[in-house]
Order: sequence, then structure tokens, then C-alpha cells
Amino acid sequence: MPAPAELLSYIDAHTDAFIARLAEAVAIPSISGDPAFRPSVLKMSEWLDAQLQAVGVTTKRVDLGTHLMDGQTLPLPNAILGRIGTDPAKKTVLLYGHFDVQPAALSDGWDSEPFKLTELPDGRLVGRGSSDDKGPWHHEHKKELPVNLVMCFEGMEENGSEGLDALVERERDGWFKDVDCVCISDNYWLNTRTPALTYGLRGLVYFKLTISGPARDLHSGVFGRTVHEPMTDLIALMGRLVDPAGNILVPGVDDMVSAADLEERAIYEKLDYSIADVESAAGAAIALSDDKTQVLMGRMRLPSLSLHGIEGAFAGPGAKTVIPAKVGGKFSIRLVPPQTPDAVEPLVVSYLESEFAKLGSKNRMELELLHSGKPWVADWKHWNYAAAIKATEAIYNKTPDLTREGGSIPVTLTFAEQLGVNVLLLPMGRGDDGAHSTNEKLDKSNFIEGTKLLGTYLYEIGAVTEVGK
Amino acid sequence: MPAPAELLSYIDAHTDAFIARLAEAVAIPSISGDPAFRPSVLKMSEWLDAQLQAVGVTTKRVDLGTHLMDGQTLPLPNAILGRIGTDPAKKTVLLYGHFDVQPAALSDGWDSEPFKLTELPDGRLVGRGSSDDKGPWHHEHKKELPVNLVMCFEGMEENGSEGLDALVERERDGWFKDVDCVCISDNYWLNTRTPALTYGLRGLVYFKLTISGPARDLHSGVFGRTVHEPMTDLIALMGRLVDPAGNILVPGVDDMVSAADLEERAIYEKLDYSIADVESAAGAAIALSDDKTQVLMGRMRLPSLSLHGIEGAFAGPGAKTVIPAKVGGKFSIRLVPPQTPDAVEPLVVSYLESEFAKLGSKNRMELELLHSGKPWVADWKHWNYAAAIKATEAIYNKTPDLTREGGSIPVTLTFAEQLGVNVLLLPMGRGDDGAHSTNEKLDKSNFIEGTKLLGTYLYEIGAVTEVGK
Repeated sequence: MPAPAELLSYIDAHTDAFIARLAEAVAIPSISGDPAFRPSVLKMSEWLDAQLQAVGVTTKRVDLGTHLMDGQTLPLPNAILGRIGTDPAKKTVLLYGHFDVQPAALSDGWDSEPFKLTELPDGRLVGRGSSDDKGPWHHEHKKELPVNLVMCFEGMEENGSEGLDALVERERDGWFKDVDCVCISDNYWLNTRTPALTYGLRGLVYFKLTISGPARDLHSGVFGRTVHEPMTDLIALMGRLVDPAGNILVPGVDDMVSAADLEERAIYEKLDYSIADVESAAGAAIALSDDKTQVLMGRMRLPSLSLHGIEGAFAGPGAKTVIPAKVGGKFSIRLVPPQTPDAVEPLVVSYLESEFAKLGSKNRMELELLHSGKPWVADWKHWNYAAAIKATEAIYNKTPDLTREGGSIPVTLTFAEQLGVNVLLLPMGRGDDGAHSTNEKLDKSNFIEGTKLLGTYLYEIGAVTEVGK
Repeated sequence: MPAPAELLSYIDAHTDAFIARLAEAVAIPSISGDPAFRPSVLKMSEWLDAQLQAVGVTTKRVDLGTHLMDGQTLPLPNAILGRIGTDPAKKTVLLYGHFDVQPAALSDGWDSEPFKLTELPDGRLVGRGSSDDKGPWHHEHKKELPVNLVMCFEGMEENGSEGLDALVERERDGWFKDVDCVCISDNYWLNTRTPALTYGLRGLVYFKLTISGPARDLHSGVFGRTVHEPMTDLIALMGRLVDPAGNILVPGVDDMVSAADLEERAIYEKLDYSIADVESAAGAAIALSDDKTQVLMGRMRLPSLSLHGIEGAFAGPGAKTVIPAKVGGKFSIRLVPPQTPDAVEPLVVSYLESEFAKLGSKNRMELELLHSGKPWVADWKHWNYAAAIKATEAIYNKTPDLTREGGSIPVTLTFAEQLGVNVLLLPMGRGDDGAHSTNEKLDKSNFIEGTKLLGTYLYEIGAVTEVGK
């Protein structure tokens, strides 16, 4: 069941009004990571609530309490829950979005005022939050919908989604009780040309490997070649974690992931992406392989290990002849199913303990897990994805890329695990939107066609005949 | 010819006056590395000149011009040249010292005001510059000396001895024309018990190894396992420079240094130093070997390679999932004769280029020599050392430790090379004086006995019968 033609023509006819409303949203600098802007985040929450009520959404403001930031106790912005319809004969779709944004200032290098939506002649709508994530949830509601809609908007996504996990757990059998599937629009196409649906995210284990020895920093003239130097040990261990081709050297970690079968491999082969795209994004011809499928699988369906830096070593410019007393190497492993932090951590611990023992050093080693998150992969053959594929084909005349993201969107896993339903990531913006960067933009065509796509997706869900979640 | 008894008893009788004069010197905060204190360094230069003239030294203030520091053009403190006697029948001894000091503030953790000389009940004279280097050059002059004395005092030693090399070169055939030997008192005993003479210093080559790839920092979620990561390459290369036992892996570097023969080995075996001393200085039981001779040779007569840190990588606390775009690893090699920077640098360059090629990375590598200095070893069988050994035995009733320092005192090499004479390092303070640290001190006994030692050394030089330098 495609969307009625009147919906699509209504959206086209109201393009200017949609852009004007997006401009209103962008004008509120709802930076969640800066205490000085907290009043704007609260204002943004109220603004959104009012907008939703104006188009007939039943809403509920949820007080998430307070939190501590930079030594101040600050009120968390209310989450806004919304609902349209309770017809048991219809599927119930949960839409998630966030109304907070990353910091931005003209002095960072923006070409225009970041909190003033600026439309460029080529159709770019430039402004902080245009693409992440104020554009994607601009919807209209004029007539009866083919589904029941449940909405969840939060204002702390850019700062760890504080309070959200507890909210989802609390409302699992409440506001979210009869949700059949989830749709999140908070990521991007793989490129600038082809719409995408995203069905996977990598997880993470982030470690700090500390080697300590002397009681204080030593002078390399006085102590060089007399004592075990912590940096020598640390660099030796960090050098045994990953090889220059990206293979993870911690035994068992790469092995946990089976090779792609032909069907899965075909997904990567079909993706509208080239080595040139990878290298243009990185700004240099440094792809690990000339085989596009291999490079895309490296990002999407393989674990990766990156060495981020060293805390406690000499990091300034110039020459300092120090033997640092205590150095903490930071590295992380991005995980893919069936890997979990619980399964990978002991492999890392036992490998590093064993390699450290081989060094024969008298220094001390300590390994700390700073941060972790599970990976997520959805069943892309589920009716939720089938509906989104049909809708994309109807609006864009293209089969969408089926992608997995290399990074994490923790709320995805929260909804998937807490509600036990299929989650779809349905990006609105293009791969070059620059979400956390200067000159963030959303292309007008993505804004308008993306709005049509979401409407059409709801109609396709309404037409689903499968019973159950 | 031991010093006349009246010299020694004069020094004992004037202990309080000596300490009072040292207190005057310490009270002038002549910090050369901080532009705000430059007037104090200039004042210190004038104070010293006046003191020298008051005891009958002919002096010459040498204007060293200006230099740029922190964007300001500052006057360099005058060097003070001094002379007593021009008798061609006597040896001419050049004494070197410096009157500038390291920074110090009570808030750094000093137990007393750093620029107020504080005498503690155990005899420690605590104050910035007490040991480095205001104590060591407090001399008296009352009667005719057994040698001609030439003096050279500078005020920029703690900041690269700016202007000194050119001065020594200019005065080689002038003020320093007939110098027969040099005595520098600007280092320390190996321990707290036994006087030392120092006949060697290590040189240095300090490198920055830069790996660059992407045009900007990348997100490890998006790019992990798709591109060659600069940190992976850098850590791999840094891990191939030195092993955990301290062996230098750059082919040819360790090989340049021949093994110690029995006579030389005996020097290290005799030194009053134990593994416990090394470990107490480092604050942990991390000595590379249980063999004291091996550990001392590692510091004094072997090259060493230390990894100092990485510029451009993530160095803060916490977890940041960055793939740094450009990282510069800092490492240095301490050199011993016959190694020279010119001989060692090409070995490092060609080794790293070859190892980088083996990585098969598409990133770029660049190696930069940030700083270098030649090592120095004097002939300790020279009459200059023989005189100092005799003087030490006379004052301390102990044969001095014959040591080499693991670090550098660049001016030593300048005098040795420019004047072509034997240079002796005759330390006054103990190994725990904390020269560049908080609570710097000089023990009163070292101050007084050290002053006697210097006087006696001059009488022993006066008794030398060898002709020539």
C-alpha cells in the first residue's frame, strides 16, 4: 500500500513551511554537553511538546531528574513521549529522535551562523542540528494514520543519553507496551547518492593498559639502560595487538566472527560505495585493500582494533628527555556479533598478561576496561525492513543500500533488548552531512523526500499482513 | 704538594662567612628560563663580578647580545671572565661555573622558601642554586696562588648556554690563550658517601618519527579496519627500536662500542654503588640486571635508547575513540665514544625506512633529528686527574670514584674541543642534592670540604712536573 498521492503532494506544497519550522528548531541552541546551554535544551523540549500537541499528538513530558556536569547539578531535559492512535487492529510503530545538538560556534570555522538555518543555492540547509537530529523528525499529521504511532524524543543523546535506559525500562509495559517495531532516524546514507537502511552497529571494549615502574619520572641520561622503562614495555605490548593490515593479534578475537556467506557478501558487493569514496572520506589514499567488498566488510561486519594514544607519556612539542614513570596506553576493539564485551575482555586480559610475562620486565602491568557496549544486528528480512525497502523504492526509485554502521548508537540496543522488537535505522541525511562537524547541513531534497519516505514507510507498515512483532 | 694547613684552617674558620655569601647568591632568583626573571639574572652577573673584584680577581664582562624567548627579545646576561696571575712558570687552570638556576616556587612543594638559603640541623643548606651551581664556585683568594687561574662564568646554562660556544671560540686565542687544563664543578657524586671525579659524558641524538595518513583525525567506529592507521604503524616501528632488556635494535648502534677491557671494567667494579642505590634512586626494584657492574656500565659506557612519548595522539584521561591523523613518536639515543651523531643518524634513518617498508602501509613516514650532541670522554690518566685524585685523598681520606655521567653537559665538550686541553669534572655535591628538583640542597660538609678540595687541587696542579697541556 503506497502512500496516498495527496500525502506526497501535500509535503511538496508545504516545503517552505517545513523549512521554516526546521529553522525555528535550529534557532534554539540545544547543546546538551555545555551547562551554559542547558536552558536552551529545556526550552527545546517545551517547543517540541507544543509542536506535537499542535498537530494532534497526545504527549507526556517525562522528568528525568538531575545530573552532575562540570561540578554543577543540572536538570535533565524532559523526554517527550507521544502517541497517535490505539487501534488494536493496526501495527504500532515507535519513532525515536533527539532534540539536543553538538556544540557549534561561528569561530569554529562555520561559513554561516550555526544556529540560523541558511539555505544555499544548491539546496543545502546549513545549521547545527539540521541533519542531527532536528530535520529527521519533522512530521505532519493531518488525517488518520495507517498505524498507531508511539514517539520517544530525548534531549541528552549527544551526552550519553542520560536517563533514557531507565525510562525505556520503566515504560516497557507502559507507554511502549504494544510497540511492534521501532524506527530510528539518526544516522546517514553511505554516500551522497543512494538511500540506505541500516541493520547493524558495532559494539566496543575500550581499554587502558598501564605500565608503571619508577616512583617518579626519570631522566634518560641518568637512567637510560639501567632500569626497565615503562614506555618500552608498553610500546612492545601495544605493538602486539594489531598488525598494519588491521588484523587483530589477540588470539580468538577475529576467529569469533565467521566468514560472510554468499548471500551476505552480495549485500556488500551491491553497496553503492567505492574505494575512492573511502579515501575521499579519509582525505588520503590509505584504504587497507583495493577490494571494496573487503574494505566495507572491515568497517561493517568485522571487529577492528585501534590504538588511540598514551596517557602519561611526553605528548608536547619539542624534545624532552624523560623516562615517564607510568604510562597508560588506550586502545579499543569494535565488536560485531557474536562478540560481546564479556566474551572478548578475558581474551585480551589473558593475552596481555602472557605477552607481558614474556618481556621479562620488572615493571607492573594493569589492564582496565574503561567502557563497553554490545554490538547489534537486526534481521533485515523482517517485515519492518521489507516495508522500508518498498517505501524507499517508491520515493527514490532505488533499492536502498543495506548497511551496517561501524560505530555505535547505544539507544538502538536499548530498544531492541528492552522491547524485544525489530529495530530499523532509517537515515534521512547523506554521508557528507557533517553531523558533528562545522557547516552541518541537510539537503533540501533529503529533507522533503525523506519526509515522504517516512510517511510512505508508515503506509507500508500499515499494509503488512504478518501477525506479531 | 698538599695545600698549606693555613688554607684549610682559614676555610674552617670562615664557614659562617662562606654560608652567608652563598645565602646572598641564592637570594637572587636568577632563573634563566623565565623572561620575568631576566632582570635577576642580570643582577646576579653584576653581583658576581663585584664579588670577584673584591677578592682581587681581574674581570671582564662580556656582552653576549640578545636572544628571543617566548616572543620577546631579551638581553643575555653578561658572561664574566676572570683571571688571577699570568706567571708563565705556572700552570693555568680554567674554572667554569654558571650563576643561573632552574625555576623554583614554594608552591612546587618546597618545604622552605626556595630563594632563602635555609640551614637544617642535619647540615643541609637548602635553596635553589645551592648545589647547582652557586655553591661550587664560592672561592676565596688571600695569598699568592700556585697556579694562574682563569675563570668563565655564564648565566644561561640552564637554558642552552646561549652565546657561550661563540664566546669560547672568540676567546680561544685571547682570554683562554694559555689555559693548560679545565676544571668544571657542575655535577654530583654517584652516591652520598664517596667523592667522585667524572671523566665522561654521553652524547645524544633525539628523533621525532612522524607517521601521517588521513587528512584529519578519524572516528574509529567509521574507519576502524578500513584504512592504515598511523598509530598502528608508529607503534610497530617504535617497538622495533629497543627491547625490554635495553638492547638497541637499530643494527650497528650497539656494535660500535667495544666491550670494556679488564682495566676499564675494574673501574666500575670498584665504584661505591650498588643495585640498591640504583633502585632507591628510581624508587622501585626495576634494575635491568642484578650485576652492579653491568648496570653501571649501562649508564656510563653504553648507549641507551628511550621512548619518550607521542605527539598528536590522544594523551588525556578517559576514553576517546579517535584515529589520530598524524602522530610523532619521540625517542632518543644516548651516545658514547666512538659514536657520534653523524655516524648514528644514518643507521637510524636507514633502519626505520627499511622497517617501514616492511609494514606495507600506505601512510607516510618522516624522521627528524630534533637535537644532537657528541659524547665526551677524557683521559683520566692525565696529570689533571692525578692532581684531583691526590687532592681528594688528602681532604676526604678516600680514593674518589672515577665516574662517567649518563647525561650531557655540553660546555664540557666545547672547552675540550675548542681549547684542546684535558677537562676534569670535579663535583662538589652529593647524588641526592636534587639539583633540578624541589628542596635542592648542598650539605654544609660538602660545601666546606669541597672548597678545601678545590684549593688543594690547585696546589696539586702547582706541583705537577709534566710539561705541556
